[in-house]
Amino acid sequence: MGIKSSPSGVGGIQFKFSQASTTVYFDASFTQLGSLADKKNTIIVTDENIFAAHTAKLKGWKTIVLKAGEEYKVQATADDIIHQLIQLEADRKTTLVGMGGGVITDITGYVASVYMRGIAFGFIPTSLLAMADASIGGKNGIDAGVYKNMVGIIRQPNFLLYDVNLLKSLPDAEWQNGFAEIIKHASIKDAAMFSLLEKNDLGTFQKNKKLIAALVERNARIKIKVVQNDEFEKGERKLLNYGHTLGHALENQYQLSHGHAVSIGMAYAAEISRQLTGFTQTERLVKVIHQYGLPAFTKFDKEKVFAVLKMDKKRERKDISYILLEKIGKGVIKSIPLKQLEIIINKFKVPLVGTGI
Amino acid sequence: MGIKSSPSGVGGIQFKFSQASTTVYFDASFTQLGSLADKKNTIIVTDENIFAAHTAKLKGWKTIVLKAGEEYKVQATADDIIHQLIQLEADRKTTLVGMGGGVITDITGYVASVYMRGIAFGFIPTSLLAMADASIGGKNGIDAGVYKNMVGIIRQPNFLLYDVNLLKSLPDAEWQNGFAEIIKHASIKDAAMFSLLEKNDLGTFQKNKKLIAALVERNARIKIKVVQNDEFEKGERKLLNYGHTLGHALENQYQLSHGHAVSIGMAYAAEISRQLTGFTQTERLVKVIHQYGLPAFTKFDKEKVFAVLKMDKKRERKDISYILLEKIGKGVIKSIPLKQLEIIINKFKVPLVGTGI
Repeated sequence: MGIKSSPSGVGGIQFKFSQASTTVYFDASFTQLGSLADKKNTIIVTDENIFAAHTAKLKGWKTIVLKAGEEYKVQATADDIIHQLIQLEADRKTTLVGMGGGVITDITGYVASVYMRGIAFGFIPTSLLAMADASIGGKNGIDAGVYKNMVGIIRQPNFLLYDVNLLKSLPDAEWQNGFAEIIKHASIKDAAMFSLLEKNDLGTFQKNKKLIAALVERNARIKIKVVQNDEFEKGERKLLNYGHTLGHALENQYQLSHGHAVSIGMAYAAEISRQLTGFTQTERLVKVIHQYGLPAFTKFDKEKVFAVLKMDKKRERKDISYILLEKIGKGVIKSIPLKQLEIIINKFKVPLVGTGI
Repeated sequence: MGIKSSPSGVGGIQFKFSQASTTVYFDASFTQLGSLADKKNTIIVTDENIFAAHTAKLKGWKTIVLKAGEEYKVQATADDIIHQLIQLEADRKTTLVGMGGGVITDITGYVASVYMRGIAFGFIPTSLLAMADASIGGKNGIDAGVYKNMVGIIRQPNFLLYDVNLLKSLPDAEWQNGFAEIIKHASIKDAAMFSLLEKNDLGTFQKNKKLIAALVERNARIKIKVVQNDEFEKGERKLLNYGHTLGHALENQYQLSHGHAVSIGMAYAAEISRQLTGFTQTERLVKVIHQYGLPAFTKFDKEKVFAVLKMDKKRERKDISYILLEKIGKGVIKSIPLKQLEIIINKFKVPLVGTGI
């Protein structure tokens, strides 16, 4: 199937970044945490759903349990974690471990980066999205109002522990969210993986532990490599925002799941690509998006969404860095004047005229 | 007087740190800011006192004006600044300039480090304390409850602009606060500067612009050098905490000024030094402390203060790194078991028996 079997194991693989290294334990088990971090000096941050699903596993570990949901990825939750850390007498020798989806890893990494000016932290991603994408790359942060990830910091975790057994209890909707990022990686970087996705569907991956572990590792390695090349997002790393510019603007205006927002964002970015780079494979992309249960083109309030979009972190004065496709497997960064983008977006019609969709 | 005249000027001197450089403009003027940062892409963060004192100078600059005082160095103020930055459409090309005392530079640096995952920032210190100490070294952050600087990040400012004319309107109490840190630098690192302080007093420095500019530069260079050697406080930088361990614990329990808290902290640290390193110059230190209008030994609630002190960031499990003096001009880092420290503190009496004070 084109996926190399994992060469990893108990030992972990060290990936170097500009200021720190992350040791990644692919295809590992939660129980290994005991050998990575001692219970006395470790605090696990998780949410009430994960805690309920894994109470037995978490026995004996100090935990901070948050309410579940993106709406809690805000400063008030960070304040609450800090308050609990003080009560638990956490100090500079303490390691924080974020166990959960992207919300948990983002906020845990953020708090660990600022508590006592920075303590050690690691992640145990429990969702497909966090495994394939969100837990990797050191972007930690919170939302501010409707602005996603407006506040944060780039700092790499000390370790990443992958246990695909944790996906067992993951709802289908969450699998779909994960596949939005996997389709993104394939679209911008890996045409062979895109073909692999075309040949399979959600069910195949859900049923086959080996297949999903290999897919997770393949995606993690794509993302790690991009981040290693450009940790502070001066160039190549921007590619990972494919589908995310419009996606983020939609996400908080419409309370969409991240996966749905990104898949819609990818579809529209493909349409913008058609106009600006001559991209011709929108139909193929939309077919895969639907194959993994995700939405493509949908109506939205263009004015409201554009008002948020123009505050995107990728804006620089009058232009915005937008990620487009030249072909499947090759993303490009294009600086588009906001005025031009506004005109293109205002002309969007569903169904899109001339795309065959 | 042993102080070299400043070799600096309009050009600025670049000091390299591990991850970034700071350009320092010693003995400069506020008006130079125009050549360092363009008005369109710059936002000055200041407090209402500084704003009132320098309204004319600030004309034409975008400003965020905060309430004055350490009690506002909290997350709620950071949230407020972030909210205003969004409203001002600040983006990754924006430079934040903190113009004020340590509270302003600390919180400005902190917000600049996390807004959009980090934007450029510079400082224009307006108090002696900020000039000689607080604005240097990249420690940015906020307080959490009674715990000072519990949340923050180490990141160096892009520039530091020194204009001693800004000290003109500084109240005497603030001059004293600044001298607490200057006495600290002299005590741990510079016996010659200690002698210089002994030979002069507050009035001499307040009256002589050249003398104070040179003293500010001498102190800034001491601190910069220590930070360059040990930016992330694994060793030498801890020396700068002389007087601050007990000082911080006192400061928020008793609403003391930072300078008063530190001078009391230095006096007691000298007494602890007498017991643990054989330090014999406590009287000389206390004399200089009083010479600059600062308090030395005072009574405090030992139990309450120790409860805060043991949560100090320099605690590591059962021990705490305490900064002591071997002699004037030579500070040392000593790891003291918390239990032992508690016993020593509980035996403190005012006036101190056997110290001649």
